[in-house]
This record gives sequence, structure tokens and C-alpha cells, in this order.
Amino acid sequence: MDLPSKILQEAVEQLATLPGVGKRSALRYALHLMKEDEQKVRDMSEAILHLKTELHHCRYCHNVSDTEVCPICSSEKRQKGIVCVVENVQDVMAIENTQQYRGLYHVLGGVISPIDGIGVHDLEIASLLRRIETGDPAPVEEVVLALPTTMEGDTTNFYLNRQLQPLGVRVTTLARGVAVGDSLEYTDEITLGRSILHRIPFEG
Amino acid sequence: MDLPSKILQEAVEQLATLPGVGKRSALRYALHLMKEDEQKVRDMSEAILHLKTELHHCRYCHNVSDTEVCPICSSEKRQKGIVCVVENVQDVMAIENTQQYRGLYHVLGGVISPIDGIGVHDLEIASLLRRIETGDPAPVEEVVLALPTTMEGDTTNFYLNRQLQPLGVRVTTLARGVAVGDSLEYTDEITLGRSILHRIPFEG
Repeated sequence: MDLPSKILQEAVEQLATLPGVGKRSALRYALHLMKEDEQKVRDMSEAILHLKTELHHCRYCHNVSDTEVCPICSSEKRQKGIVCVVENVQDVMAIENTQQYRGLYHVLGGVISPIDGIGVHDLEIASLLRRIETGDPAPVEEVVLALPTTMEGDTTNFYLNRQLQPLGVRVTTLARGVAVGDSLEYTDEITLGRSILHRIPFEG
Repeated sequence: MDLPSKILQEAVEQLATLPGVGKRSALRYALHLMKEDEQKVRDMSEAILHLKTELHHCRYCHNVSDTEVCPICSSEKRQKGIVCVVENVQDVMAIENTQQYRGLYHVLGGVISPIDGIGVHDLEIASLLRRIETGDPAPVEEVVLALPTTMEGDTTNFYLNRQLQPLGVRVTTLARGVAVGDSLEYTDEITLGRSILHRIPFEG
């Protein structure tokens, strides 16, 4: 794309680095911003910068937070003995949206993936183990592994389970099965198989 | 959406003001930026701000430009007697991409649209007329109206034509017809009608 201005070109190239945004969309965004009020554009520019300069992570669960300890970890209403281990911040939001979980979280920041060069020390695994060993902020009785069912997720689950067993906590994982509303006919074999193996008492 | 941080929330709300970007995409962008290097995010933040603070418009054609007079208006290779009137910067790029037009441009910055409160004085119409009256930067022989074929575009064409006729310039407009590669069967009646009315000599 041949743009009439280096400044426009630079903005387009920067915006095109956002996930799923191509040059054409980036140009649309840039031309839109050009027409906005200066204050509006200044606000956006600052809001983006603040993501790096102002945003903190909770010292316990490593979820994003404006405070040193996040609202979930500091809430009196949560069951502090249960810690749900998730890959990223989106997963915390997804589980919170269900309104079914009242324990705490631990955000790993990824999963073990040798192919991407992500090892144990790139993730918040040491801090998870320390949390259980020291009982800070609260003694942990159960760790719920809620990592993705990919090879990397399974590897991480396996590694964590081996590290957690000696610490005397109960290790559980999410139930996998046929999604609510899905028909059996179109469910993949592995999922359907697990649904049958881990069948639960009928609640009439 | 309930976000764990006001700073994240603010960034998501700002990004969601981009055209065609919803809260979900905005969150994806924000979480992506959170993981980027600080310098990278700083560069993007600045590039966005520069769209407002650094970007100029050519004093003649009002296209975006890093210089007072844009490369097209200052080029020695262009036919300066022909001015193509377009709605916006994207239209200049679209015509330039055809590599078929060697004249200059005039970017109106919109079209007359009473329903959106856009009148003659919100557009670069006075500067177009002045350009023709004064012959600055060059005497104009022909004005090509290349505005969209909407009610607003037609209104603007009509208004411009009435203003331009007394100035003694030739006023032309884009040929409308069946697009190259389109079948007649699926072409709308108005377009096909115009294609027949304005048929041209066959070049064998």
C-alpha cells in the first residue's frame, strides 16, 4: 500500500500489529482517528500506553489488577482454600462470568510449550508452589487445573500434578463432556467417551 | 463485560471506538498489547497521537501529507490542468492505485449531507473555487467529479457543477457502467442502462 504520508504509514503499520488486524483495517482505523477530536485521540494514545506503564498484576494470583492485591484475592467472600490454575487473564474472566466459582485463581501466563520456547521458568509456577508451601495469603486445600486440553496444556497439567502431590493438596481438573445443548451425534469421540466414563448421578 | 482493572477497562473502551471494533476484539487487542514490549506499545501510542499532532493536509488538494504541498501537487510529472474532486483520502489512494490518472486532486472531506449536518461550508468547496479562480498552483481546464453515486454525492455534484460552470472550466464525471468481469444478468438496471446510453466506440 502506497500511502501519501510517512506519519500515516507509521500509524497503519503499528495498528496492523494488533492480532487479526490487516493493513486495510489499520488504514481504516488510522483515517478514522485522523477525523476525531485531538483530545479523543490523546485519550486513546494514553490508554494504550497505560496498559504497559500503569497496569499491575496481583502479587498472589498474577491476574491484572490496579492494586497490589486484586479484588478477588482480597475479597472476604471467596473460598480461599481453593485455587483454580488458568492459562491467562481471559480464562479468569470466562470462569468469573459463569458465577459458579467462589475460590481464588492463579494465572500461569501461558502453558509449557518447548516449540515456542516456553519453559517452566517462564510461567508463574514457582509462585504457585510457594503460595501452597507458605500458605500466603491463605492455606490451600485444593488446586483446580483448568488449562486447555491441548498437548501443551496436558504437559503442564502433568508437570503441575507431579509438583503438587508432595505438598498434600487435592488436585482436581475441570469436567470434560458433551456441551450443554450439543447433540451426541456431532460430539467428537474423545469428548463423548469422557462423558460416559465420568458419568454422574442423575439429579431428578 | 466486567474487567478486573480500570486501566484495562479504559483501554478496551477506547479501542472499541475504532470503526467495526467491538468490546471483544478491543479486549483481545488490549491483552495483546499488555504482553508486548514497553517500547513497542510506546511506539504505537505515539504513532496514534501523531495522526492528530503531526499529520498535515496539502494546502492545495487537502490530501494528507507530511509537507505543506503534497508530492502529487508538487510533482513535475502531473497534468496540472486537470483536478479530480473526491470525497476523501481513501478515494485518492484508490484512483492512484489504478495508475491511469495523471492529473491533480481536490479532497472535499465529505459530501453535502443535510441529514448529518454537513453543509457547503464544512467541505473544501470554497478552496476548490478559489483554486480555479486564482489559477494557484496552476490554471485549471477540467474538473473531474468523482464523488459517490449516492443522493448526497449527486447533490454535491449538482452544487459543484452550478458553481463551476460560470468559471469556464470543463466539468466531467466518471464513466459508470458494467464493471469489468461482471455479467449483464446480475448488473443492476440503472448501471446497465447507463452502460448502454453512454456506449463508446469499439476498439478492435
